[in-house]
Parts: sequence; structure tokens; C-alpha cells
Amino acid sequence: MYRPELKVLDCSIRDGGLINQWNFSDEFVKSTYLALVQAGVDYMEIGYKASKKQFDQSKFGKWRFCEDDDVKRLLDGIEGNIKLSCMVDIGRVEEEDILPKTESPFSMIRVACYAKDIDKAIALGEMILDKGYETTVNIMAVSTNTEREIDEALNDLSRSQIPIVYLVDSFGAMYCEDITFLMKKYIKSLPGKTIGIHTHNNRQLAFGNTIQAIIDGANMIDASVYGIGRGPGNCCLELLITFLQNPKYNLRPILKVIQEYYLPLSRQIEWGYVIPYMITGALNEHPRTAIAFRNSPDKDDFVKFYDTLTTPEPVP
Amino acid sequence: MYRPELKVLDCSIRDGGLINQWNFSDEFVKSTYLALVQAGVDYMEIGYKASKKQFDQSKFGKWRFCEDDDVKRLLDGIEGNIKLSCMVDIGRVEEEDILPKTESPFSMIRVACYAKDIDKAIALGEMILDKGYETTVNIMAVSTNTEREIDEALNDLSRSQIPIVYLVDSFGAMYCEDITFLMKKYIKSLPGKTIGIHTHNNRQLAFGNTIQAIIDGANMIDASVYGIGRGPGNCCLELLITFLQNPKYNLRPILKVIQEYYLPLSRQIEWGYVIPYMITGALNEHPRTAIAFRNSPDKDDFVKFYDTLTTPEPVP
Repeated sequence: MYRPELKVLDCSIRDGGLINQWNFSDEFVKSTYLALVQAGVDYMEIGYKASKKQFDQSKFGKWRFCEDDDVKRLLDGIEGNIKLSCMVDIGRVEEEDILPKTESPFSMIRVACYAKDIDKAIALGEMILDKGYETTVNIMAVSTNTEREIDEALNDLSRSQIPIVYLVDSFGAMYCEDITFLMKKYIKSLPGKTIGIHTHNNRQLAFGNTIQAIIDGANMIDASVYGIGRGPGNCCLELLITFLQNPKYNLRPILKVIQEYYLPLSRQIEWGYVIPYMITGALNEHPRTAIAFRNSPDKDDFVKFYDTLTTPEPVP
Repeated sequence: MYRPELKVLDCSIRDGGLINQWNFSDEFVKSTYLALVQAGVDYMEIGYKASKKQFDQSKFGKWRFCEDDDVKRLLDGIEGNIKLSCMVDIGRVEEEDILPKTESPFSMIRVACYAKDIDKAIALGEMILDKGYETTVNIMAVSTNTEREIDEALNDLSRSQIPIVYLVDSFGAMYCEDITFLMKKYIKSLPGKTIGIHTHNNRQLAFGNTIQAIIDGANMIDASVYGIGRGPGNCCLELLITFLQNPKYNLRPILKVIQEYYLPLSRQIEWGYVIPYMITGALNEHPRTAIAFRNSPDKDDFVKFYDTLTTPEPVP
């Protein structure tokens, strides 16, 4: 698949940080940066911006906050033709945390929200645009929304300045048919805007569904090195690169950073195809129950976990 | 997806045996059998039939040969509403190895072949039919065939008695677009016959491509418990069951056999998403180079493996 307008965004540090509270070494982040530059990836999402009034700095690594000065220190003396991105959650960031673009190493700040908060997301996204950044709105967990709720959110977005809107399969619950159905809806509802795709790999469908979204017209594509990300993780960047035909993308630097950094890390912290995440995906549920279960002594008792989630509770 | 005519075939022992030379304990095979029965799976493929003149019995477990008496001994006293299958390769089995159906516990014997051997496969398949079994022809590695070669094989099959023909992605090289293109061709070329699908998971597309084939009309679906199979393995049975809507299929017994047998085994022998298999899949090559590399001291030097396969050799 070759479309010159298609862009790849790597979210390894941002989504992977959800596993280890963003406690990556500077060497790890820098090596990822260099690999992505060499691989021709368009954007690197390095973490979240978040208010230090709301989050205790001692409990998180620095990429929970993405302070502009930390980025500048990390990349001091390194040149790379890649745009930096960070993410913000509705209600977890203050306007003062976002400097004007001219004072920041970031090119893009993405807004994650649920459909019910679309008005707040649009307001935040437009503030980010006003400060000079690129922005996106990523509507999470739409697999749990009614069609009417999705239509309403897309209708609000269509009347906004937000240039890029993401289809997000937060729970790894979607099939290719769902992707096609929603991609058609997003494209029809959002004329003139770019559609992005962000998938989760609970059921080994992250790459397949990403391909489907690309076929259906998505032009901003999220992936992560070796699939790193919370729970089952994301679409693997190395797989995505083998699918894309644009000669600017190179697989080899990604293989190198996998063998040197991501493979060793995968032996210390868990992500990937793990049955409890498969179960929450199949049940279209948030992975939090599976994450808690994987930290319990019964972590490999898949039947117990399945029974817990599928045994009906008495209705009051 | 609910279609009453859709059948599921589990190939855990047959394809998984390619990793460990079929050295499964009787307890392992029996537990798999019982789980598949409870899960409502339609067929269990327990191994290959092969000539003992060609293969040294001391080097393989018993499911390399699938002697009828071994099956009878294993399942003595166990009742289960599941059909047993085994596979034969062209030229690796003698007619005398295949007893009449009335004397055998097997219901189905499947023939694997390359497109160039389709005449031999049809002759072997029709002999199997004459002996009273169900049969299929599985044309391997069609991702490396020209369209003319595939058309010729399908044309020969269309004039045969073979009732079921498999689309096989031997190298894990296909995308959903390839699946749809070939499924259309198989269905159009083989009126009145059932089409099967067998995928490999080199690029995490085994389940996604299986879904695509089902949407496109495949009605015999191969999968294996926890994806066990040579190299990256196959479509995971537990994933397939979450997709199929037929109430006769049950996920829970498969989760149980995974946690009790397949998860422990996966710590002793390797299958799944491993970068060298991803690379052979992306290059549309047989996994044999990757399997050898994973048995070498450099097994995690992915860049070295990639360079070996992608550095052009001088043309004589």
C-alpha cells in the first residue's frame, strides 16, 4: 500500500509507559528516537503532558509529564527529521502546561477523550491549535458507544477546527467488519479531515485491523516498536513497515532497536498475547481487570478469570 | 459469524508436532482430545500418516505415523462426538498404510501438496475417498505460485471427486486482500465444492486472515490450541471460537487445556510471534531458514538474519 499522504506515528514510549509508569531510561528513549528517525517514521509520541498538581511526580517517570525542557535535554545535540508528539487527557492537563509552539520541541499534541466529553476535547484541541501545534482528537472506546453517541461526537467534530480524528479500538474488541463500518462513518461525517487509526492487540487483530483501516482510507497510522503498550499492546511498527510500500520507511533500524532494547525489556515487563487480555477484548471490556489479574498469584488461571467475568451477577 | 455448515478443524497435534517431532505424551494428546470434544470442535487432526519405510520410527513420536491401533489404544474407553483426521504428504505414504475406513478410527484423511503435484494429490485423494474416508486437498505455498499455476491446479480439482479444497497461506505472507482475491478464485473455479482455510501467524495475521476467508465463504476452518504449530504457528482456536457465533462452540474447555498443558509447553518449545518468522513471512519464504537461525547461538540477532536474507547474492 503506497499513499504519499499516509503518515506513521510511533507511540512506543507513550503507550508503553502505561505498563511501567514511564520509567524508561534516557538511553532507551534516545535509542528509540534514533531508530525511528532512521526508519523514516513521521511522528514519535514520547508521552503524556499532565498536570503536576494532579499527579505525584515521585510516582512516575518523566514521560508522564513531557516537560519541554526534559525533551530538549534528552535530544541535545541530536538531529532528526521526525516530529515529536505528546498526548493529553481531558481534565488532566492545565493550559499553563502547554507552552506556545515556538518555545516547545513538540509539533503535535493529541487529545484523548471519550465520546461523552467531545465538547471538552474540541475546546482543548482548538486551544492547542491556537498555540501553534498540530492536533488530533482520539475518541476512545467507541466499541462501547451507541451509534447515536458516535454520530453526535462526529457531528460536533465536523463543525470544529480539529483536522485529524482517530478511530480507536481501545479494548481490542473490533473485527475488520467493525473497522470498515466505522471508517465509512468517520469519512462520511468528517469531510476534509484526516482519519487516524489506533488499535490494540488483545486478539491478534491490531495489525490486520490497521491494514483494513488503511484500505478504508485512514492516513494517520499508530504503531509501536514490537507492539509495546498497555496489556496486549498495539499494532507492531515492524509489521506496519513491511506492509507500507513507501521507500522512505526502513525495517532494519526497527529490528535493531528491538533486539537491543525491546526484546530484553519484554522479559522484564509484560505485553503481548496473554489470555486474560484476549478475554477482555472478546468481551469488549476495559483491560483493567486483566491487568489486575496478571498481578495476582492466580495470574495463569485463565478459567478462573473467565468465570469471574462471565458469571452473571444478581440484578438488584 | 454464524453459518451452520461451517466446520472447525483443530490441527494442534499435527502441526504442533512439526516443532517437537510429534513427541507429545499420551496425557497431552488425550487432554487435547477431551477439551476439543467439550468445546464442540468438529474435527481433530492428530498427526500424519507416513510410510515407516521412509521415516525412522526411532526418530519420531507416534503421531508422525498415526497408526490406527495407536489411536484406538489412546482413546480406549473415551467417547467423544468429534471426527478424527490425519494428513498425508504426496509421496510419503503407501497405499498399504491406509486401511479401509471400516477398520479405522479416522473419518478424514487430508492430502497436502504443492500445485505442481496436483495430479498426484487428486489420485491419492480419490483413493482415500474410495476407501470410505472424507478427504481434502490442501494446496500449499500458493503465495509463491503464478496465477496460471493456481488456475491449472484448480481446473484439475474442479474435474475431480475431491469435495473440499483448502486455501493455505504456508508462509504467512498473505494480506486480507490476497485472501479475498484467492477465495473468489477458488469459489468460482470449484463450483459445488467446500473451500477451507489454513493460515500461519508469521505476521500476526492468521486470525484476521481466517476471519476474512470466512467472510469470503470458507466453511472448513483450521485452527490450533494457543496457535501451536511450526514456526509462528497457526490461527488460535480460542480466538476463532470467540468469533464464531454458533452456540455449539465453547471457549472455556480450550482455556482450561491452555493453562494446564499448552502454556507450560510453550515454555519448553517455541512457537508464536518471533521476529525471524515475521521476516520470512514478509519475504514470502519458507520458514526453514528462520527455524535454523532460532537454533543457532545468534538466535536473537534479528538484523544479522535480515541481512542474510536480503543481501543480494551475485547472479552467475
